[in-house]
Amino acid sequence: MPQRTAWETEVGIPRVPEGIETPAVCLDLAVVLANVRRMQQALSAQGLRVRPHVKTHKSLRIGRLQIDAGAQGITAATVGEAEVFANGGFDDIFIAYPVWAGGSRGKRIRDLHERVSLRVGFDSIDGAEQLARAARGARPLNVLVEIDCGARRSGVPPSEAGPLAVAAARLGLRVLGVFTYAGHGDRSPEARLAAANDEVTELARAVESLRRAGFVEEEVSGGSTPTALLSARRPVTESRPGEYVFYDQNKVALGICQLEDVALVVATTVVSTAVPGQVILDVGTKALGREGSPDRGYGHVPAVPGSFLRLLNEHHGYLTVPDEVTRPRVGDVLAIVPNHACPIVNLFDEYTVLQDGREVDRWPIDARGRQR
Amino acid sequence: MPQRTAWETEVGIPRVPEGIETPAVCLDLAVVLANVRRMQQALSAQGLRVRPHVKTHKSLRIGRLQIDAGAQGITAATVGEAEVFANGGFDDIFIAYPVWAGGSRGKRIRDLHERVSLRVGFDSIDGAEQLARAARGARPLNVLVEIDCGARRSGVPPSEAGPLAVAAARLGLRVLGVFTYAGHGDRSPEARLAAANDEVTELARAVESLRRAGFVEEEVSGGSTPTALLSARRPVTESRPGEYVFYDQNKVALGICQLEDVALVVATTVVSTAVPGQVILDVGTKALGREGSPDRGYGHVPAVPGSFLRLLNEHHGYLTVPDEVTRPRVGDVLAIVPNHACPIVNLFDEYTVLQDGREVDRWPIDARGRQR
Repeated sequence: MPQRTAWETEVGIPRVPEGIETPAVCLDLAVVLANVRRMQQALSAQGLRVRPHVKTHKSLRIGRLQIDAGAQGITAATVGEAEVFANGGFDDIFIAYPVWAGGSRGKRIRDLHERVSLRVGFDSIDGAEQLARAARGARPLNVLVEIDCGARRSGVPPSEAGPLAVAAARLGLRVLGVFTYAGHGDRSPEARLAAANDEVTELARAVESLRRAGFVEEEVSGGSTPTALLSARRPVTESRPGEYVFYDQNKVALGICQLEDVALVVATTVVSTAVPGQVILDVGTKALGREGSPDRGYGHVPAVPGSFLRLLNEHHGYLTVPDEVTRPRVGDVLAIVPNHACPIVNLFDEYTVLQDGREVDRWPIDARGRQR
Repeated sequence: MPQRTAWETEVGIPRVPEGIETPAVCLDLAVVLANVRRMQQALSAQGLRVRPHVKTHKSLRIGRLQIDAGAQGITAATVGEAEVFANGGFDDIFIAYPVWAGGSRGKRIRDLHERVSLRVGFDSIDGAEQLARAARGARPLNVLVEIDCGARRSGVPPSEAGPLAVAAARLGLRVLGVFTYAGHGDRSPEARLAAANDEVTELARAVESLRRAGFVEEEVSGGSTPTALLSARRPVTESRPGEYVFYDQNKVALGICQLEDVALVVATTVVSTAVPGQVILDVGTKALGREGSPDRGYGHVPAVPGSFLRLLNEHHGYLTVPDEVTRPRVGDVLAIVPNHACPIVNLFDEYTVLQDGREVDRWPIDARGRQR
């Protein structure tokens, strides 16, 4: 019996190569490059610095593409991610997170601070005290006050940015400015517009608060893939989008990209057709996370029209196939457009790099699992 | 400022040690040992062989504890998991999955087959053909027919077990018997009882089908953590529970264990208290998966009464804290009882091993990420 053929897919979705071992996370290099350049150019044209968030790709190679395209530095979510990128030669890193620098993490931050140009987020005096303790005896550590612009996650109200900056400066930290994340912008196109506005408005308020407290801000950092192009205006000086390197089904639904801009798919093999009306794929939560819902499904399979990925177990995906559509056969390889790229990348050790539908390389997902 | 103290928790929930770097997945060794022994003894007492599913723990050390307690061998979900355990000295492995042995995976199965006592699942003639091709020239490969007992996932109807076994034998495979997974038993206590009954009834039908086709079955394999003790009767010869080593909040809800039987927690640090009514934890989907729902929450924090883990981003957990309860402070360490242990283990590289609330060791999660 011959090796099965990978199914043809819609225009723009990477074809996964025949004979590939699955599940595999595949990226289309040409699409990644186009995405990186387009975002960089759009933000640079507005006079912003770009500091891409590497939590999406966790890859030194892709980070380097972003720097080569003009990025100022990178943003990391954790100290562990920052360490991987520092070891890989990146020298300008912002950990945009209210890092708790207690215990051994204090020493790790100190080490990073001595090796690269590091900046760290904070939103409490307790957090600032730990950061100051970690940097004691070294040059002052650069920090940014996190403010809340509506996501109601972390960050102080903008009016508290100044007082918190004063407290941090007294502890010996060097306050560069403020940052925020408009996490409330990913629910709908309307929410996205409102959140981008909130981002600019609340950052402006925070800048006022800083100035009243006697600080001249050097950095006003915002931006995320949904809001970056809408919030690229004063007083914002820097944008930190992450997902734009790959995009995903959620971003298509949000109207910020087309299906052909999606650079990342998960390759899967049909392993069972024993139950009528569906096929079972070799992807479950260990390959796709549980990003989605029973209503929305857990990913999009363009090659099988009308199909619906309705349920995931750990190693099984249940793809409903309409009666009038030819069911894929056992052994067939399909491409899944994920709902949310970031958590999926974190489940794999390497990318299968595709060009024109052919595997041309494997790239390690260098910072996979560096969650602390 | 002193290092924060880990919060005291309810009886039976592992206390996470002070100063631990988080997020971390912590196991209480005494509870693991008790869980392993109790399940082994209960199933042995019914005359069943136990073949624990290692997809839960992915750890050579824990697999060895299971063998030492009397397990016959192990069950794996993927060829990659089987390879890790074969390399670790395990010599009796069942890949209880309809493995597609195309491409390079055929050679990997062949290599395993030549090194250890291997058995593989299948539920289609196409799948059997690929397995037979992989083993050609070697001694016959042991296979089990997967049957569906109600989960409507993979597996043929029981009445087709015999004809499929005949086809597989003609291809040169050695059919040992049948297996099933009662995945429909995890929704409610009632569903659990019904599913355990289905498991036994449908396996008995499959045995009839095998016998009519001229096969004498050597193995009739069922069992999962929810159903194992209920389906431990003829014609079942072997049980494959996995989650019982750790249990989790879902199993507590299902009534098959108590909170004090849960051996695994995720240690987390409070990183922000800037928004009233909640605290932000340093765990998101990259530490907890997205196991749960907005209604149920994404994990249980026993130390903070009435708290509710209502939302996860990638690196942030939103823990709602009732007004009348003292909010944890930034830097405090808390234990989260996860809803579902298996996908969480897969997100970490090592266990923090606890005894009497103290860290005594780190164990690698050897087969983490081996999804193909």
